[in-house]
Amino acid sequence: MAGPITFYFDIASPYAYLASQRIDGIAARHGRTVDWRAILLGPAMKLNGGRPVNVTPMRAAYAREDLARLARIWGIAFVEPPNLPIFALRPSRAFYWAQGAEGPEAARRMAQALFNAHFGRGEDIQEEAQTLDVAEAAGFDRSALAEGLNDQRIKDRLRAETDASMTRGVFGAPWVIADGRNYWGADRLDILDRVLAEGG
Amino acid sequence: MAGPITFYFDIASPYAYLASQRIDGIAARHGRTVDWRAILLGPAMKLNGGRPVNVTPMRAAYAREDLARLARIWGIAFVEPPNLPIFALRPSRAFYWAQGAEGPEAARRMAQALFNAHFGRGEDIQEEAQTLDVAEAAGFDRSALAEGLNDQRIKDRLRAETDASMTRGVFGAPWVIADGRNYWGADRLDILDRVLAEGG
Repeated sequence: MAGPITFYFDIASPYAYLASQRIDGIAARHGRTVDWRAILLGPAMKLNGGRPVNVTPMRAAYAREDLARLARIWGIAFVEPPNLPIFALRPSRAFYWAQGAEGPEAARRMAQALFNAHFGRGEDIQEEAQTLDVAEAAGFDRSALAEGLNDQRIKDRLRAETDASMTRGVFGAPWVIADGRNYWGADRLDILDRVLAEGG
Repeated sequence: MAGPITFYFDIASPYAYLASQRIDGIAARHGRTVDWRAILLGPAMKLNGGRPVNVTPMRAAYAREDLARLARIWGIAFVEPPNLPIFALRPSRAFYWAQGAEGPEAARRMAQALFNAHFGRGEDIQEEAQTLDVAEAAGFDRSALAEGLNDQRIKDRLRAETDASMTRGVFGAPWVIADGRNYWGADRLDILDRVLAEGG
């Protein structure tokens, strides 16, 4: 009777992008489903002393090497966007708009379309028109989404999900919670896989 | 003609401890040797916005869960010391004293004895007497080491190694450099293993 695995991601995080390409497959291998949740990491990072991966030249150089290598090893397309990190406010609202309008599968499709545009092809997705372009190409209704991005309920939903994640102890992304256990970082997915294989 | 793998560690880092238990085995599997180098992470963390793993309650809670799980999965004894993180000045000097007095194998034995006391048994090793106790139990000459800990050449060596690591881009621990490639974090050892298997 194992419940779904919660997958917290910030669409601005390259490591969350890499994890987004693997999490469903790992869950499915153990008969589990994934509950995708977009969050904005800014508030939690401020509280916990976190930093974007490229905050200094030394960190940026390492992240560039590390991300390219992980993408290669895991067989994932990766193109570093020019303006890393973006503030993923509109893309995250688009995710919850899709969830409300069409359900969790559509929301996941929206997240994947945005992640793929940003990190798979290196496109900017931060501005409203850019978010709309990606969504429309993925089959979503452009004008309905444009309204949704400015809908107070959508704005509140994103804020509530971000607050709830912090209450659960989340301060980074990707972050997985499975059976009450926490897994931070794309590199912890193999550990998750192993723990799930042991029976959760 | 592959050269040795450089393994940078701060004896205060629990993740460096976990890596210290695995690095020689991974290297040996690919016919490689490991060049152990103690460093003090403080200066690099200050420059790069790094933080000890337990700098806030949320981070401490996650680190506790994560470290215990990794230790269990990798089969490594782990007991959280009461005063994490220590300032590993004297333990790091002990490492370079052993290297100068008896060579690299002795230095590795010194590092392992200190790591094991601190993270394998949860003992404090920060004060000079504590460092000496651990070293003596591991077969080193207590009075010679006591002199070494206050030898200007040993102090300078630790400082020079720390500076050199920063020049090479190191800002965290454990940090491995193999064939010019960088691997930061205990979780990157499996990636290192894979890259070495591909031929480096």
